[in-house]
Amino acid sequence: MVKKLALLGAGRIGKVHAKAIGEDKRAQLVAVADAFPEAAKAIADAYGAEVKTIEEIEADASIDAVLICTPTNTHSDLIERFTNAGKAVFCEKPIDLDVSRAQACADVVRKNGGKVMLGFNRRFDPHFQAVRKAIDDGKIGKVEMVTITSRDPGAPPPEYIKVSGGIFRDMTIHDFDIARFLLGEEITSVMASASVLVDPKIGELGDYDSASLVLTTASGRQAIISNSRRATYGYDQRIEVHGSEGSVAAENQRPVSIEIATKDGYTRPPLHDFFMTRYTAAYAAEISAFLDCIESGKAPSPSIEDGLIALKLADAALKAAKEKTVVTL
Amino acid sequence: MVKKLALLGAGRIGKVHAKAIGEDKRAQLVAVADAFPEAAKAIADAYGAEVKTIEEIEADASIDAVLICTPTNTHSDLIERFTNAGKAVFCEKPIDLDVSRAQACADVVRKNGGKVMLGFNRRFDPHFQAVRKAIDDGKIGKVEMVTITSRDPGAPPPEYIKVSGGIFRDMTIHDFDIARFLLGEEITSVMASASVLVDPKIGELGDYDSASLVLTTASGRQAIISNSRRATYGYDQRIEVHGSEGSVAAENQRPVSIEIATKDGYTRPPLHDFFMTRYTAAYAAEISAFLDCIESGKAPSPSIEDGLIALKLADAALKAAKEKTVVTL
Amino acid sequence: MVKKLALLGAGRIGKVHAKAIGEDKRAQLVAVADAFPEAAKAIADAYGAEVKTIEEIEADASIDAVLICTPTNTHSDLIERFTNAGKAVFCEKPIDLDVSRAQACADVVRKNGGKVMLGFNRRFDPHFQAVRKAIDDGKIGKVEMVTITSRDPGAPPPEYIKVSGGIFRDMTIHDFDIARFLLGEEITSVMASASVLVDPKIGELGDYDSASLVLTTASGRQAIISNSRRATYGYDQRIEVHGSEGSVAAENQRPVSIEIATKDGYTRPPLHDFFMTRYTAAYAAEISAFLDCIESGKAPSPSIEDGLIALKLADAALKAAKEKTVVTL
Amino acid sequence: MVKKLALLGAGRIGKVHAKAIGEDKRAQLVAVADAFPEAAKAIADAYGAEVKTIEEIEADASIDAVLICTPTNTHSDLIERFTNAGKAVFCEKPIDLDVSRAQACADVVRKNGGKVMLGFNRRFDPHFQAVRKAIDDGKIGKVEMVTITSRDPGAPPPEYIKVSGGIFRDMTIHDFDIARFLLGEEITSVMASASVLVDPKIGELGDYDSASLVLTTASGRQAIISNSRRATYGYDQRIEVHGSEGSVAAENQRPVSIEIATKDGYTRPPLHDFFMTRYTAAYAAEISAFLDCIESGKAPSPSIEDGLIALKLADAALKAAKEKTVVTL
Repeated sequence: MVKKLALLGAGRIGKVHAKAIGEDKRAQLVAVADAFPEAAKAIADAYGAEVKTIEEIEADASIDAVLICTPTNTHSDLIERFTNAGKAVFCEKPIDLDVSRAQACADVVRKNGGKVMLGFNRRFDPHFQAVRKAIDDGKIGKVEMVTITSRDPGAPPPEYIKVSGGIFRDMTIHDFDIARFLLGEEITSVMASASVLVDPKIGELGDYDSASLVLTTASGRQAIISNSRRATYGYDQRIEVHGSEGSVAAENQRPVSIEIATKDGYTRPPLHDFFMTRYTAAYAAEISAFLDCIESGKAPSPSIEDGLIALKLADAALKAAKEKTVVTL
Repeated sequence: MVKKLALLGAGRIGKVHAKAIGEDKRAQLVAVADAFPEAAKAIADAYGAEVKTIEEIEADASIDAVLICTPTNTHSDLIERFTNAGKAVFCEKPIDLDVSRAQACADVVRKNGGKVMLGFNRRFDPHFQAVRKAIDDGKIGKVEMVTITSRDPGAPPPEYIKVSGGIFRDMTIHDFDIARFLLGEEITSVMASASVLVDPKIGELGDYDSASLVLTTASGRQAIISNSRRATYGYDQRIEVHGSEGSVAAENQRPVSIEIATKDGYTRPPLHDFFMTRYTAAYAAEISAFLDCIESGKAPSPSIEDGLIALKLADAALKAAKEKTVVTL
Repeated sequence: MVKKLALLGAGRIGKVHAKAIGEDKRAQLVAVADAFPEAAKAIADAYGAEVKTIEEIEADASIDAVLICTPTNTHSDLIERFTNAGKAVFCEKPIDLDVSRAQACADVVRKNGGKVMLGFNRRFDPHFQAVRKAIDDGKIGKVEMVTITSRDPGAPPPEYIKVSGGIFRDMTIHDFDIARFLLGEEITSVMASASVLVDPKIGELGDYDSASLVLTTASGRQAIISNSRRATYGYDQRIEVHGSEGSVAAENQRPVSIEIATKDGYTRPPLHDFFMTRYTAAYAAEISAFLDCIESGKAPSPSIEDGLIALKLADAALKAAKEKTVVTL
Repeated sequence: MVKKLALLGAGRIGKVHAKAIGEDKRAQLVAVADAFPEAAKAIADAYGAEVKTIEEIEADASIDAVLICTPTNTHSDLIERFTNAGKAVFCEKPIDLDVSRAQACADVVRKNGGKVMLGFNRRFDPHFQAVRKAIDDGKIGKVEMVTITSRDPGAPPPEYIKVSGGIFRDMTIHDFDIARFLLGEEITSVMASASVLVDPKIGELGDYDSASLVLTTASGRQAIISNSRRATYGYDQRIEVHGSEGSVAAENQRPVSIEIATKDGYTRPPLHDFFMTRYTAAYAAEISAFLDCIESGKAPSPSIEDGLIALKLADAALKAAKEKTVVTL
């Protein structure tokens, strides 16, 4: 039976999920809530849903699940509220900018037995899935080193930077999750070098725009993360895993893969312009996995605990960068 | 307003189009007809359509357009019938195995002013479109030579071969169309070397499974086509255009683009397994273009004339191969 | 013991071979002859050799072998003269522009038991060798189709065109040899479309600058050759072999293989500028193979017969193109 | 005039340099010294040189320069001795395992005005040179982040590990130099995670076999280094530089670049097996640059100071890894 979903938050990422729901035959978007009613209406109209308040959605027994795409500072409250109301919850990262608040939220969910899936979309990318499968199939032996290159095409506006929690909680958090997804072991120490190289305004707001990190597990496996808020050539998203028997890599993706050869050389087009186009298939697979959890009753993955660990790693990275030290977890 | 479409023929290619229609918000599949009612029912059920007869579809004034995906020997009759009935028609290639019958059909359409689009899906592939755009944008100067590599993963069963009209009318016909799409000039001579290298049974049926062709235009532009009914590494679909200022190429596509490095080398996965997965985006864009024509009233492209020319080139190639001669058009 | 070699002809290709000899510890360049003494002197000085006349070289019993790099119309005479003198001979392609003269020359060599190696350098390219090895190792099963792309960066001057024997005898002759090297069967029919697309002056001289050919063997194996006298992006030299179990390809080579990514896309440098840089390793391996033959007494390969067959294929192609027919051998 | 060179140390790297000298017309190898006379004789015979003692070489006024390829613990003494003797010196990395000894050696050289070039061969690789040129030409704007992947095909034997000074002084030292070559600024802090993942014996000897490092400059530029003593797929040597306007990368190199496609996928051969084959062109260019310095009198680069800085970075990395801290320079 088709599951009825409500969307909380009609911003950029809300639109991405609405589209994925619209294309999944197992789901129907029935309600959209947003502080700006016009934003909610635009999405509701496009997918045959209704604009509703949070309270109306909470009270509507016919709604199976909600997707929390609101500002970060509302995530924990909404997770608690809707799991208490017995609805399955999909929540965008991060759970909260404050680890203790996120921990309290996770505790509530553990108690109320709520079903919460965290929005680490990259785990669902078919190329990254294939990398993970190659590891699981033993193609590269024992995992030893993970390399993640993750660069945004451009920096977000100052207003976004201000409420983002900083580069580690906003951007690197995805890479922490992918590192854990690939390392096969928990991370026990974090090193980070962070700078302001792209835009001095980001520095004035107390944030960084360029970062290089090394994560280490108990057995000595290592992960490298390279982050920048600017890549002129598009959304740079690569992973590579080095193991005892070999290596596996997922290269960058582009909308069209032609090559033009002239006297100036051989040129392929730039990469996807950002996550909405780069991770289209991942967003679809993510919604599908969420629906699987609702239908089958199995535990969601990535879970709220995954979200909590990623957040702790972000805090560790911030401390490591600020205090120029190695942070042990 | 959403256009109501009927599907004639519920076989493999019919399913491909039904799926594309199902994902296009501007279209609704309302009826499916097939000699095997269960086949029709399977698709109808999947997309909320009804099983109907050809006659019922013809008589249903609410239906805007039909997609002809029936066996080739019915194409011409159905094109005439449904254009006479005032419906827009999308027809799979080829129009007919017999050029004079196809010509007669085209004449009928010219007279009744019918709107007929031919199913040359490759023109709508985003990578091939980008190649064409590079040409149109002047990136490679004047077009001089086109190279098309087109190899199927495996040979079709003998029953299919028998009614297919042979490799040139069934398989190369797509490449003739792409050659014309890229050459920017009409083809005036055809050379073809054709052999049975893959399966002797194909030879026993009077057909070939391997072919190399050279097409030439009036001004001396050249196109090369390489065809095989077998490619162990997947569906091989490449184009390259060489011009006075440079060259542009569209490489093969694969479902996931990872690379595994071991002591045996660097390995990427095989290509897409066949057209259903390789040309998913092309089929969607094709239906969208068909809907554009219905909505806007503009002339369909590729047109029935494009289908007729491709068929004539196929006949010329067969004659060239059989008689070991160069056929001038 | 170091073999003493003499160079006949101190032009462009003579220089290439002189360099290869200079870097091979088994050989010493001892004499250089040329109609222009300054040209001979330049090479002789660079490699510690002496300028000598043809007669002096012929009479010098200490000289083991000669390399014939003179104009084509002298090749046959020189081959006969130096094999009669008991010296091993390396001769640049083609043997002669006239097949009957070349045949007569080959007959003389058969009678005098001379050792003659033809200058089909591409057989010695390490990448092409690896392609051939992959075939020999059974990696792609039975060979079915060969594709050769061979485009020069720019057209030679009119003076060269005039004496070159035309595109098929001058340029395609290399591709005929590589086709034979890879097909594993003799070619029995030739088709060719040839045009003047690059430079009208080439047409005025009765030659072509753009050609597409299809070669077929007795069992139906096919080879495609694509030739152009202009490639803005460098010296385009690719081969691909399609077989019953797979395919093997050698891609283009460039001096440095970096890639620059900017807002305009991902750009790799142009290819090698021409044969002198593209085939450096091939020329070295070719000289080494020639020395092997001298030392071991084994028969040279490619042989004068290989040169003769390539020349006959060139003549067949010219006839096929001029008369718009398929030429059977 | 041809420069006369003497080789001190006839081991693996000595052979590499002897070969490079043998192929350079501006140089002649005249003497070879080694504790094992047979090793010295083998090289001497191959290149027409004589076996001599250190003392004889020192006393031979006709010898212009020496290449120090002896064990590391002799480097400083030999540098001092031969610069005092007025000969140009090329010395393999590292100068010494002890920074203070290396510093003392550099001080001696500063005083005696000796000409010393350090053996950081990678700076001379044509691909890496092209990366540097792209930076210098402004193709990628201001340098922000450097990524170096440097993995050996296999671990050296325990005897070598014992005297190597450990992974940072033996292996990473090349990457420190390349990082400096590309960053355009001095490194001011070092982070390092190091583990024993490849071979427990390496751990028993107090060394590491896997390391991830982050280097930072005063203005916040960052370099990442990924090292492993094992890469099943060959000698992994990649660099990438990310800048304000774009990015430039040098990919891995392999002996032949064919690709075989079968039902199992598309496979390219493994990489070069190690530095002798991977950096052939670099070793040739390195010797050529050394000869340029001798001839022109200009200061060698990389200099002994470059060697000293790389050694200090290696010490910093060791401290950072051992004490799990960030080391500031």
